[in-house]
Amino acid sequence: MNHDCPKSGWIPLLYDHTLRLLAQRGVTLMDIAEIAYELQRPYNEHLKKDQCLTSVEQVLKKREIQHAIITGIALDVLAEEKRLPNPLQLMMEIDEPLYGLDEILALSITNVYGTIGLTSFGYLDKIKIGILRDLNNRTGNVHVFLDDLVAGVAAAASARIAHENPDMERYREEEIDLIDKKEEGA
Amino acid sequence: MNHDCPKSGWIPLLYDHTLRLLAQRGVTLMDIAEIAYELQRPYNEHLKKDQCLTSVEQVLKKREIQHAIITGIALDVLAEEKRLPNPLQLMMEIDEPLYGLDEILALSITNVYGTIGLTSFGYLDKIKIGILRDLNNRTGNVHVFLDDLVAGVAAAASARIAHENPDMERYREEEIDLIDKKEEGA
Amino acid sequence: MNHDCPKSGWIPLLYDHTLRLLAQRGVTLMDIAEIAYELQRPYNEHLKKDQCLTSVEQVLKKREIQHAIITGIALDVLAEEKRLPNPLQLMMEIDEPLYGLDEILALSITNVYGTIGLTSFGYLDKIKIGILRDLNNRTGNVHVFLDDLVAGVAAAASARIAHENPDMERYREEEIDLIDKKEEGA
Amino acid sequence: MNHDCPKSGWIPLLYDHTLRLLAQRGVTLMDIAEIAYELQRPYNEHLKKDQCLTSVEQVLKKREIQHAIITGIALDVLAEEKRLPNPLQLMMEIDEPLYGLDEILALSITNVYGTIGLTSFGYLDKIKIGILRDLNNRTGNVHVFLDDLVAGVAAAASARIAHENPDMERYREEEIDLIDKKEEGA
Repeated sequence: MNHDCPKSGWIPLLYDHTLRLLAQRGVTLMDIAEIAYELQRPYNEHLKKDQCLTSVEQVLKKREIQHAIITGIALDVLAEEKRLPNPLQLMMEIDEPLYGLDEILALSITNVYGTIGLTSFGYLDKIKIGILRDLNNRTGNVHVFLDDLVAGVAAAASARIAHENPDMERYREEEIDLIDKKEEGA
Repeated sequence: MNHDCPKSGWIPLLYDHTLRLLAQRGVTLMDIAEIAYELQRPYNEHLKKDQCLTSVEQVLKKREIQHAIITGIALDVLAEEKRLPNPLQLMMEIDEPLYGLDEILALSITNVYGTIGLTSFGYLDKIKIGILRDLNNRTGNVHVFLDDLVAGVAAAASARIAHENPDMERYREEEIDLIDKKEEGA
Repeated sequence: MNHDCPKSGWIPLLYDHTLRLLAQRGVTLMDIAEIAYELQRPYNEHLKKDQCLTSVEQVLKKREIQHAIITGIALDVLAEEKRLPNPLQLMMEIDEPLYGLDEILALSITNVYGTIGLTSFGYLDKIKIGILRDLNNRTGNVHVFLDDLVAGVAAAASARIAHENPDMERYREEEIDLIDKKEEGA
Repeated sequence: MNHDCPKSGWIPLLYDHTLRLLAQRGVTLMDIAEIAYELQRPYNEHLKKDQCLTSVEQVLKKREIQHAIITGIALDVLAEEKRLPNPLQLMMEIDEPLYGLDEILALSITNVYGTIGLTSFGYLDKIKIGILRDLNNRTGNVHVFLDDLVAGVAAAASARIAHENPDMERYREEEIDLIDKKEEGA
């Protein structure tokens, strides 16, 4: 059974809805794939952008990740329409630097792919690249959650590729020897 | 400088606002203190409820914890007023069991006091006690976030007491000996 | 591409090694599957123990989870052989209640399957069932990490089943209507 | 009651031991303070290195953080002395890039000071500065855990300063007005 592709009719629905929300907020899957590519490229010289796009799609099929995106974008949109209660409305309008729930939502995305995703997310949070810079500069819109969600998905997609392409060549054989010896000696 | 009691004029404001929000949703600090008491009592026979109340107050003075409560209660209230976009509105109305952002917000509360708080939160999530049971049974209200936030604060307040009252008596002296010996031998 | 079953020759090696380590410490996959069954059974009346066993196997195929088990069991064994430096040796011998790294390793296991796994782990940490009770009572052995690792794998395996069997029947159709209406209105 | 300075005789003991371990591995508190300074300086033009040093000291007084450092350095030293079982010994010798427990231990340090610490840690993990670069380049030594632990403490010390110096001036008064108005309207 494949964890990435459940058969329920609900899941594709939420998946399509998630893509639509991202598109409505000006983010394409390729925008995210390009960040994942920048993150993973230094470790993988054969990496293709298409691979990153597929990885972004797989990440966005995870339920918890859909929930984080749906909730975070709802808060952004409500803030834009000035429909949140204060002081939350104000904190989002000024993007209060100690407000950390945007990062917490993003971390729930990267967690799914282990600590590699998490450190990449921390890096993106400081060094805004690609669509992340654009989102940061668009005035009139509230993107408190969106930029962290996009960074989280990109970091997760990059970590997913890292886990699928372990660079084990340099020590695999040596290791097999070592485990074998240990077994014999035990 | 004391991390728990900053001097800024803003902090007491957010603190008061947080208490007011909890009160508006039917939760008193003593309700939370009683859960913290149940959690910590088995490990501390001299524990007083007043100590738990003080610990709850200290937990609620932390900025990140105030932000989590302010955001979670805003989502509960917006859902009650049917002002969230679908499918988020529906997920909150039916308390969709795979929706985990309520727990993620609560975990950002307990994290501050280490893993002890975290396991206590997991326990409370299954064995609803005190006000948590009441919140779960109140119909007409949406408490998707509130019950987890309350459990998170109670778990954090209990963990805070555990960290302040380490039961080290049984091995402190033995340990001092051991470290001393190690130093000499080094 | 299936994230659970990479093709590298290294992975089955680490997987087999992980199973062997668990067996050497007295834990079978069925012991873990039985805890996962207890956790998930209340939500799924058709659940079979075989399903839980398969889920445990899938969890144990994840690299990060193998690393956590390999490291935690190494620390347990080194403590048993009194080969750790003090004060770590002493903390492990007395199972110092504020030592939380065993739980941190276990949480890195449950994180992979989202917050459901995490709350189940917190619950198991308080209510020791099945093999967890046995591990706790075996004298002469150090199981500081092992019991938390086993609880973590069981919680993760249970969460994995929950994610594969969402109980969406009660609202799927209603929801499709709602999303459709929203789309029309947009 | 001050969470940072418990009165137990054990705590100063573990604190001194932690400092000694760091010194034995070639890391001074000022090395860590300098990284914290680099992280926090862009947000605080009046920041002094002494303030960072004090913050590093306060971070190192937390029990969970002492436990992480004691355990991580023990693993580094055991690996250096080739006393870990395989395959763990080999993974540490080659600093296997998918081995994430070093980062997990470090994250248990930064967690205590919220998400700000966490993103700073992710940044340091990519952009090695100061002592982190030196640790990475010292051959003959195993620093799998040490570099992440040092980055974790620096990120936590920086986050601690950020929380104590919220830059609220720009909107505090405006906010008080807003909350007041909301209260009147309620």
